[in-house]
Amino acid sequence: MTASKKNSVLTEPSDNLHIDTLGEPKINSPLLGFSAHGPAEATPWDSFTEDDSRILVDVSTKALTDIVSSGKQPGSFEEAGARRQIYFDTSKVRAAILTAGGLCPGLNDVIRALVLTLHYRYGVNNILGIKYGYQGLMPDYGHELVTLNPQEVSHIHEFGGTILGSSRGGMTSEELVDSLERLNINILFCIGGDGTLKGAHAVAEEVKKRGLKLGVVGVPKTIDNDISMVERSFGFETAVAVASDVIRSAHTEAIGAPHGVGLVKLMGRDSGFIAATAALAQSEANYVLIPEIDFDLEGPGGLLQHLEKRLNRRGHAVIVVAEGAGQKFFKDSGQTTDASGNVLHKDIGVFLADSIRAYFKAGKKELNLKYIDPSYIIRSAPANASDHIYCTFLGQKAVHAAMAGKTDLLIGQWNDHFVHVPIAMAIRQRKKIDPHGVLWSSVLEGTGQPSLSNNQRII
Amino acid sequence: MTASKKNSVLTEPSDNLHIDTLGEPKINSPLLGFSAHGPAEATPWDSFTEDDSRILVDVSTKALTDIVSSGKQPGSFEEAGARRQIYFDTSKVRAAILTAGGLCPGLNDVIRALVLTLHYRYGVNNILGIKYGYQGLMPDYGHELVTLNPQEVSHIHEFGGTILGSSRGGMTSEELVDSLERLNINILFCIGGDGTLKGAHAVAEEVKKRGLKLGVVGVPKTIDNDISMVERSFGFETAVAVASDVIRSAHTEAIGAPHGVGLVKLMGRDSGFIAATAALAQSEANYVLIPEIDFDLEGPGGLLQHLEKRLNRRGHAVIVVAEGAGQKFFKDSGQTTDASGNVLHKDIGVFLADSIRAYFKAGKKELNLKYIDPSYIIRSAPANASDHIYCTFLGQKAVHAAMAGKTDLLIGQWNDHFVHVPIAMAIRQRKKIDPHGVLWSSVLEGTGQPSLSNNQRII
Amino acid sequence: MTASKKNSVLTEPSDNLHIDTLGEPKINSPLLGFSAHGPAEATPWDSFTEDDSRILVDVSTKALTDIVSSGKQPGSFEEAGARRQIYFDTSKVRAAILTAGGLCPGLNDVIRALVLTLHYRYGVNNILGIKYGYQGLMPDYGHELVTLNPQEVSHIHEFGGTILGSSRGGMTSEELVDSLERLNINILFCIGGDGTLKGAHAVAEEVKKRGLKLGVVGVPKTIDNDISMVERSFGFETAVAVASDVIRSAHTEAIGAPHGVGLVKLMGRDSGFIAATAALAQSEANYVLIPEIDFDLEGPGGLLQHLEKRLNRRGHAVIVVAEGAGQKFFKDSGQTTDASGNVLHKDIGVFLADSIRAYFKAGKKELNLKYIDPSYIIRSAPANASDHIYCTFLGQKAVHAAMAGKTDLLIGQWNDHFVHVPIAMAIRQRKKIDPHGVLWSSVLEGTGQPSLSNNQRII
Amino acid sequence: MTASKKNSVLTEPSDNLHIDTLGEPKINSPLLGFSAHGPAEATPWDSFTEDDSRILVDVSTKALTDIVSSGKQPGSFEEAGARRQIYFDTSKVRAAILTAGGLCPGLNDVIRALVLTLHYRYGVNNILGIKYGYQGLMPDYGHELVTLNPQEVSHIHEFGGTILGSSRGGMTSEELVDSLERLNINILFCIGGDGTLKGAHAVAEEVKKRGLKLGVVGVPKTIDNDISMVERSFGFETAVAVASDVIRSAHTEAIGAPHGVGLVKLMGRDSGFIAATAALAQSEANYVLIPEIDFDLEGPGGLLQHLEKRLNRRGHAVIVVAEGAGQKFFKDSGQTTDASGNVLHKDIGVFLADSIRAYFKAGKKELNLKYIDPSYIIRSAPANASDHIYCTFLGQKAVHAAMAGKTDLLIGQWNDHFVHVPIAMAIRQRKKIDPHGVLWSSVLEGTGQPSLSNNQRII
Repeated sequence: MTASKKNSVLTEPSDNLHIDTLGEPKINSPLLGFSAHGPAEATPWDSFTEDDSRILVDVSTKALTDIVSSGKQPGSFEEAGARRQIYFDTSKVRAAILTAGGLCPGLNDVIRALVLTLHYRYGVNNILGIKYGYQGLMPDYGHELVTLNPQEVSHIHEFGGTILGSSRGGMTSEELVDSLERLNINILFCIGGDGTLKGAHAVAEEVKKRGLKLGVVGVPKTIDNDISMVERSFGFETAVAVASDVIRSAHTEAIGAPHGVGLVKLMGRDSGFIAATAALAQSEANYVLIPEIDFDLEGPGGLLQHLEKRLNRRGHAVIVVAEGAGQKFFKDSGQTTDASGNVLHKDIGVFLADSIRAYFKAGKKELNLKYIDPSYIIRSAPANASDHIYCTFLGQKAVHAAMAGKTDLLIGQWNDHFVHVPIAMAIRQRKKIDPHGVLWSSVLEGTGQPSLSNNQRII
Repeated sequence: MTASKKNSVLTEPSDNLHIDTLGEPKINSPLLGFSAHGPAEATPWDSFTEDDSRILVDVSTKALTDIVSSGKQPGSFEEAGARRQIYFDTSKVRAAILTAGGLCPGLNDVIRALVLTLHYRYGVNNILGIKYGYQGLMPDYGHELVTLNPQEVSHIHEFGGTILGSSRGGMTSEELVDSLERLNINILFCIGGDGTLKGAHAVAEEVKKRGLKLGVVGVPKTIDNDISMVERSFGFETAVAVASDVIRSAHTEAIGAPHGVGLVKLMGRDSGFIAATAALAQSEANYVLIPEIDFDLEGPGGLLQHLEKRLNRRGHAVIVVAEGAGQKFFKDSGQTTDASGNVLHKDIGVFLADSIRAYFKAGKKELNLKYIDPSYIIRSAPANASDHIYCTFLGQKAVHAAMAGKTDLLIGQWNDHFVHVPIAMAIRQRKKIDPHGVLWSSVLEGTGQPSLSNNQRII
Repeated sequence: MTASKKNSVLTEPSDNLHIDTLGEPKINSPLLGFSAHGPAEATPWDSFTEDDSRILVDVSTKALTDIVSSGKQPGSFEEAGARRQIYFDTSKVRAAILTAGGLCPGLNDVIRALVLTLHYRYGVNNILGIKYGYQGLMPDYGHELVTLNPQEVSHIHEFGGTILGSSRGGMTSEELVDSLERLNINILFCIGGDGTLKGAHAVAEEVKKRGLKLGVVGVPKTIDNDISMVERSFGFETAVAVASDVIRSAHTEAIGAPHGVGLVKLMGRDSGFIAATAALAQSEANYVLIPEIDFDLEGPGGLLQHLEKRLNRRGHAVIVVAEGAGQKFFKDSGQTTDASGNVLHKDIGVFLADSIRAYFKAGKKELNLKYIDPSYIIRSAPANASDHIYCTFLGQKAVHAAMAGKTDLLIGQWNDHFVHVPIAMAIRQRKKIDPHGVLWSSVLEGTGQPSLSNNQRII
Repeated sequence: MTASKKNSVLTEPSDNLHIDTLGEPKINSPLLGFSAHGPAEATPWDSFTEDDSRILVDVSTKALTDIVSSGKQPGSFEEAGARRQIYFDTSKVRAAILTAGGLCPGLNDVIRALVLTLHYRYGVNNILGIKYGYQGLMPDYGHELVTLNPQEVSHIHEFGGTILGSSRGGMTSEELVDSLERLNINILFCIGGDGTLKGAHAVAEEVKKRGLKLGVVGVPKTIDNDISMVERSFGFETAVAVASDVIRSAHTEAIGAPHGVGLVKLMGRDSGFIAATAALAQSEANYVLIPEIDFDLEGPGGLLQHLEKRLNRRGHAVIVVAEGAGQKFFKDSGQTTDASGNVLHKDIGVFLADSIRAYFKAGKKELNLKYIDPSYIIRSAPANASDHIYCTFLGQKAVHAAMAGKTDLLIGQWNDHFVHVPIAMAIRQRKKIDPHGVLWSSVLEGTGQPSLSNNQRII
């Protein structure tokens, strides 16, 4: 019923949240300001996070009371940060970085933070960039490796996209680990979404089976903000900002013509976070359609009749639809999956535009519908200031985890702290909008939209 | 030593965090989608927060163990949100809104969210805007009252500043409550910083003394992000974004001339959050000077010699200084306070510019120093998308609290939840940057700056 | 062969460029700073343009020599500006403003400049806004008239679109003049494109036939910048700026995947000014396809083979296509026209995307094509600073012309001067890109693109 | 009295506008699409400008009639563009580029266009970047030369400032030509303002005296837009756009406090183009003070009393002042010049702020004055889309002129055409705002500001 509800489904016994390591860290980590490049002129600064520093999963006192009274330990995440003891000999580390999946603002920022932290904080000089995701590890594709250093990455955060390129798609973890062994890589940073992280987990498991000293650290990338146990995914704020500008464009078009309708399709295959959040930021949206909430087109409660009434009354309307909304309308058609295994959806934006136009044509009513699909404009945007900072933190924390010998984890943020999350836990299920939580309630307050369902009841 | 440390100083017995009320709420709150304007065509949506829903102050498991083992209750905040039962008869409520202190991005957003939620969610039609802060309540000043409604505020969030105007300065709580009584106001929303909130608390106490049914709800405004028990203050993200652009300007100027130095002064009287965070966002800063960290100008460890060495080696440098940094250099000069009681500082930006120029002139070295003071450009910026959303939430939560009869509180965010904070607790002390926390460590990693102190030691 | 060539086709005997008037202007125009609102405290400023001030059409000395030696007068435009004597009694003027056709940045700026100049400079207080273009003049549509004054329009330039709404479409000039008579309108300002201006001319002719004292002044609106005798149309610079950002998005997507192609469709039904100019501003475009230049898809010289070679060599490509390019591919399909009489084209963007995908699929080559159609995002953008200024000038000049009793003209810019252009001359033909002129040559220099024609020759 | 007046002072007998050359161009220029890198796959494109293509200086028919009737030739500029015959053997050319003076948006764009055109159009591979203006040519300063090629400059236009650095200051033309000879440079491109162009002219004269085959081509840089015979200088539109945002900040601050005054100082030492144009773009300015128009502070007509009346009436005001305005107030103080010979002015912004504060303090009136000096933020901005394009043209035209053997000229724009202007003519006097021209009249119409002079008369 409240925002805290989102956490309760995630409350887990702490042992599920244990982070795997390659071995005991026994090497002194360099103090800040006393880098591996030799004694700095800077005064050394002592700033480490202890391994037993843990962050509660659920911050509701009620949940806590229940757990404590049942004699269990409340679930908690290991806090991320530089460790006093590290596992790797920094002069011998060979690290590799890859990006995979669709573009997302901040990819270059994460790459940059990884390289700068490896180099300046730990003195690692051997850093490879893998081109086009996992493809770049497979010799067959013929992609060359890229050498990364501070000079190369100094300005890349000013640009959207990824300097390493990206791709979707599948090869076996055996093949990948063969390549990683051949390349003598000690640490692999995987920046990517659900599919990429599943790959990273499989690699980590294969590495473990072979007994290799190779750490795998993920930085979760999901422009949809729908990875479990990750409060905020990088690029999301930028995406919302760009999307909200587009909603304003749709509103401007809608009021610019008689019976004007601005229809915007936003990303969100399985969850409507971008659509809902952007609609909050740019309060001109009148209807927000997301995968989590069912809606009807036809009938007295459906979108079409409601839209017609609104146009008669107000003259214009803005509809924001997440790409994964209304998939029931495509039920009978055969679904397929893309190379990463994501279910490919029919285009709900085009479907809605066609349906609305047909409805008004049938009713001989004037309609001026303008359809905008800004997906690639959003995906390719450079990170805004907030995401610049967030990506810097993620990259720093990922390096700290890797240097400490931790593996098969990703860097998340929870209750305003950076934490280590076992990849296996994060990929178990997608994060969804809670229909009774604070976000969706605010959208309903803002839009005043009804249930759009023919099946009337208090929800 | 870690980020969580920031919380420990704030861990308080829960009874200190108790929220005062005007009386028992006994009126049914309207369901979402079933507004006081009459039965909506929308399906009603049931989405309330219970009064016993509380959010832990400290999320570190260690802190929790200590507290539980000592038999105490861990500190927790009451969660914000719409209550099922409210205190006021919505048709009779007369609400007033005022903004005070310096400009901050998002002021208009909060005003707008207050008005829209009062009107659409609760059917309150009697909403007054008070001009120029507390001044507007005092008849002597002759400022007229403004009537606020959805039409008036529909586009104000597109603009920076505040449509109500603002001012600093003091009148007694007795005078203010006299005016509030005369105006028949039931709810007073105060959007402002430390001084304004102190005023709001004094008003609430005077109201209590007189036994009036008048709720006082604060929305904390501090562009410096330095109010205790408030994780994030509205406008801060926008301020950081604008400030980071200015740091880039300073960098461009610095590399554009031989021995170029870009010097930027940013807000931050008592804490350096804007300076530190903007320096993270725009990684061209080489020195970040904040009130929390002492630094020397002269001597082998001081800024001047270090800067000279850097110019010899790299040819350019960027310095970011918070306005409250280096106040020790003005010790002997008499300090005064402004109308809100804030200590007025000598201008550290101008002082640094003069000191650096004098040092290089004395050494007959070329220097091209460009000094930028962007304060009013930052303060007057319209909120960005992230702050639009954040302000919308703050305004909604403030109205929910007020309608439920709660008083003498402000709306904060803690561990990613919106919470009620007693004003008296929030104004007890300022929030500061932890020199060993995650923010300052990241700044040091990013800039590589030394301690700039002649008193060498591991810090 | 050169840029000046563009002018020679337009060189006309001056009598064709004569501006029609309603009668002799005999009333003293108010001095600047001495408005109709009463004696200003300002010092009056004398700043008028004389009627015999004319601007040469062709500024090439060769053209001039030819004309002078043949004993003819060189073509010239009447210069726009405030006249010392005006035609209308300002206290009795009733002016009307309408906007028609697709949205274009700056519409609100022009409306605002018209209202402010009518009110502050001439003291006209009776200003009507006509909703949704010519529709708003027809009682059948039931659109209400809007009263315009400085207060109403003070902030509208901050927003894209038009506060008056727009529409395409046709009614007879008789009907329109009937309405104008019924409404007692003395001056009609028509802001619109080719279709709208044809309508305005027809109205002006009908007005003349009836002997009415009703001035018709056009402000040419064409986001495509393709109205003859108008060097620059308002909104064009803003459109180019937004379009160039989208080309950068396409480039980012193109380099983000193996064999990445970014395909952007831009406005430009009959001329490719936006596509060509935006490609110059954002130099990542590799192919620019415009209506003025024929190109082939198939064959050794065609786009498909050239694109394949480029992807093999460079790995990525960006294609910018104007909506009116390549219409020969749709020849056999039946063409229709929209309500304004514009020829409706098949969608060349979708056609190209499909063709390229089919070609690579047939060749079993990897392809990652991302298609972006930003039309409504561009059209709905608020004007940038340059267009704010330009629209202010256009509105001021339009009012000066109208008050002086001039009619059946539009405000153009020529050789950096604002001029009066007879509507009939401007609508005779569209402006086109000269394949040998400075713009297209620069595009070819920038992109390095070949002729994309199977018919090889020096062009 | 009209805009065309600006031209009449510039009308010169054509022989003054003659462009000097190094000798007869006898080498065939490469066709577009058939570069020196070998036969392109592109179809060659024939697009040249003839040497006898000339653009009239004055486009007013009256001026023309006067000149023709007096038997003289009207003044005209040589049109810029690629010539069919060039002077230099492209494989042997060694070109050098320098930037000097204060930063200006677009410097990197011009550098980039020069390099790309030299390389791709003419096959010149030997291109040097000179660091920090003329300093970089003098061995004493120890600045290294930079090698420029397409790869190096591909993204520099995304950033403000200049990759070459800049400086002000003086060395003799003999020393400079000695260096140029020593470096075997054939073409020197000087991007800079008045001082830099004077230097370039002196170099060209010294080159002529020594009989060297060394072309000197200037690209005029003046953020103030005040170089004679140059209609628009690059960076000016960007500067106006940024400045107009700052005026809006000042307005937001002004309305945010009782008796709020926003005071903005903008660039403009000798002319007020930025202040006047930005005030037009952002119509919130109430007073615009520029060097061309005298104003008083004290007295019944002066600024202070008028401001007080406005604050009493409206409550707020925005003042925009160009840095060179009101210099009469500093008359008695000794003036000095900077290294480029520019007269250094006292700071009128600070002076006005102090004067206004003193006046209100003396009158015991409340005043909230916020002073903003955005100079370095404006100077360091990256070029906007319009300036990207304009700089591309300037760079292309400069290379075409240089390759054709032309020298001692700069690239200007006149009547919407790019032209060659003899440097000696351009530096003879500064361009100024005409008090009776279209720009200033529009400012007066927009602000409604009076003459601010105690000496009342019709102006």
